Amino acid sequence: MKRIYLDHNATTPLRSEAKVAMIAAMEAVGNPSSVHAEGRAAKAIIERARQQVASAFGADGADVVFTSGSTEGAALVMGARQLHGAAVEHDAIRAWSIEDLSVDTAGKVQVSDPEISTMQLANSETGIIQVLPEGLALTDATQAFGKLPVAFNWMGTTAALISAHKLGGPKGVGAVVMKRGTDLPAQIKGGGQEMGRRSGTENVIGIAGFGAAAEAAVRDLEAGVWKKVEQFRNILELALVEGESKSIFIGKDMRRLPNTLCFATPGWKGETQVMQMDLAGFAISAGSACSSGKVRASAVLTAMGYSEEVAQSAIRISLGPETTEEDVLRFAETWLHKEKKHRARMA
Amino acid sequence: MKRIYLDHNATTPLRSEAKVAMIAAMEAVGNPSSVHAEGRAAKAIIERARQQVASAFGADGADVVFTSGSTEGAALVMGARQLHGAAVEHDAIRAWSIEDLSVDTAGKVQVSDPEISTMQLANSETGIIQVLPEGLALTDATQAFGKLPVAFNWMGTTAALISAHKLGGPKGVGAVVMKRGTDLPAQIKGGGQEMGRRSGTENVIGIAGFGAAAEAAVRDLEAGVWKKVEQFRNILELALVEGESKSIFIGKDMRRLPNTLCFATPGWKGETQVMQMDLAGFAISAGSACSSGKVRASAVLTAMGYSEEVAQSAIRISLGPETTEEDVLRFAETWLHKEKKHRARMA
Repeated sequence: MKRIYLDHNATTPLRSEAKVAMIAAMEAVGNPSSVHAEGRAAKAIIERARQQVASAFGADGADVVFTSGSTEGAALVMGARQLHGAAVEHDAIRAWSIEDLSVDTAGKVQVSDPEISTMQLANSETGIIQVLPEGLALTDATQAFGKLPVAFNWMGTTAALISAHKLGGPKGVGAVVMKRGTDLPAQIKGGGQEMGRRSGTENVIGIAGFGAAAEAAVRDLEAGVWKKVEQFRNILELALVEGESKSIFIGKDMRRLPNTLCFATPGWKGETQVMQMDLAGFAISAGSACSSGKVRASAVLTAMGYSEEVAQSAIRISLGPETTEEDVLRFAETWLHKEKKHRARMA
Repeated sequence: MKRIYLDHNATTPLRSEAKVAMIAAMEAVGNPSSVHAEGRAAKAIIERARQQVASAFGADGADVVFTSGSTEGAALVMGARQLHGAAVEHDAIRAWSIEDLSVDTAGKVQVSDPEISTMQLANSETGIIQVLPEGLALTDATQAFGKLPVAFNWMGTTAALISAHKLGGPKGVGAVVMKRGTDLPAQIKGGGQEMGRRSGTENVIGIAGFGAAAEAAVRDLEAGVWKKVEQFRNILELALVEGESKSIFIGKDMRRLPNTLCFATPGWKGETQVMQMDLAGFAISAGSACSSGKVRASAVLTAMGYSEEVAQSAIRISLGPETTEEDVLRFAETWLHKEKKHRARMA
């Protein structure tokens, strides 16, 4: 039976446009730092992708510094300068932040001093979207870019983190986008690539894929692809409610990413649900994908005031452009069946 | 006319084995940290490549931590702990080292305390090979791996840096290889990937290419491919000497990489030679490929005691497995012709 992938917030399948660009970039022989024709050709691939990413992110005229992903981007920005953040941020941010910003029960982060704070644009587990305050030092836009119309040039934010693999590009490539001229000392030093902000021979093939994926993702977004995704997400939510699930739907009345559904079923561990659904042919997750397969209680939900029991029982379903109505209905049917069995066992 | 690429120490064309592995890895949908089947399949690609790289580098049983390349690897190892180094090291090492190790006129580095020192295995500009002292903290094996028979397990070194794009793999992926259990705090933090030493969703496609390229490169090395390359390098050197070049051949009597020829022609800037030869259809370099096309006097040569004038007039020719005898003879003919014209202008 065909497997159904409902974990697009963890990572996305590679888009055909990205594949084509990457396979073409495989023919570039030179080092982008070399001055000869082969070097200039490799450099041109990077600069084209930089323009594609800037344009897709509404960041024309801003600096796009390619990195190995948002985790490196967080280390680059926050390793240089401590910022205040909340517990709903991704671990890559939490590893560096002064974690003293409060979160309300609706998942909204309260920022007192934007210039020394960081705030995500959308949460990867709940999909909840934040309203960014003017002058924010850094936003983690990793999960939002490609799914929401965003324009860095109008966000009022100094810097943003984005990543290719959340929008159909390859894993292991991302960027820090910054207002032109922002001071940012390199954390990875040497050859002086990326305007001196990030040394090392560039991931030419991956960067080519990022550029093509970003361009295609934003074209899809403008064409309304995510409206359809949102409908299917809502159909899924409705099917679960009508199936008399006893679950708590997180962020139901909040502005959310169109593809994300997070719900907790107290008494039934999220980890167990992920494994049971995996065996039944569905890829979903409990909390963020984190290393070495360990699955913890969601820090995002406890930060919103939910109990450990609720947090441990949460799962995340995240749809993609290729998800069909049949996919979500099959998920609902299978999950409700398993929930019923689980309740029967517990009774 | 077909261009002739003689800049393999800057970067290499992507090998067919790497291409095949990368295109296959493009079909992996999951995040390697996800526990479901799609996640485990992506993880398996990484672990297979880790084994291929370890085996090719003679490092079975050692820890292989994938990075975005040797420049990040240097930041990872040396950002945590300051090491002594010499001025012949790559800029990615020099950015972090206490530069107080001396270099003799033959290019040999003198190490007094190996446990707190770093030393390259082979120099990228001259090809000169170092004898690593027992107990060395770190070796930059980037340029040697794939061109020389090396075995990390017998080097007596605690850690080594390697990079895919020097041996036919993609740019933007590399590894730190370490004796198992070596303490190494992460510089890029968050999800805890790579045994907690390097967070961030892995460059699955690039890593797949690295594994395949490393395996194929070592197979070629064992099959004697670089013996042929060495013959062509020697033919090139001889052709230049017999053509009555007034050049100084650097490291001629030293143990050198089989593919590298570095020579200085005082009075004729290396930068100018690179541009003239580029127009004539040859890709070569002056010094290391460094960022933004700037070409400086080689710090490697001045560290060996050569004058600024000599260092500024040096070029590097680096052959690859696909280089033919005709390629090097055409290079020699063209270069000698241009040298004669240069001398006539100067006379």
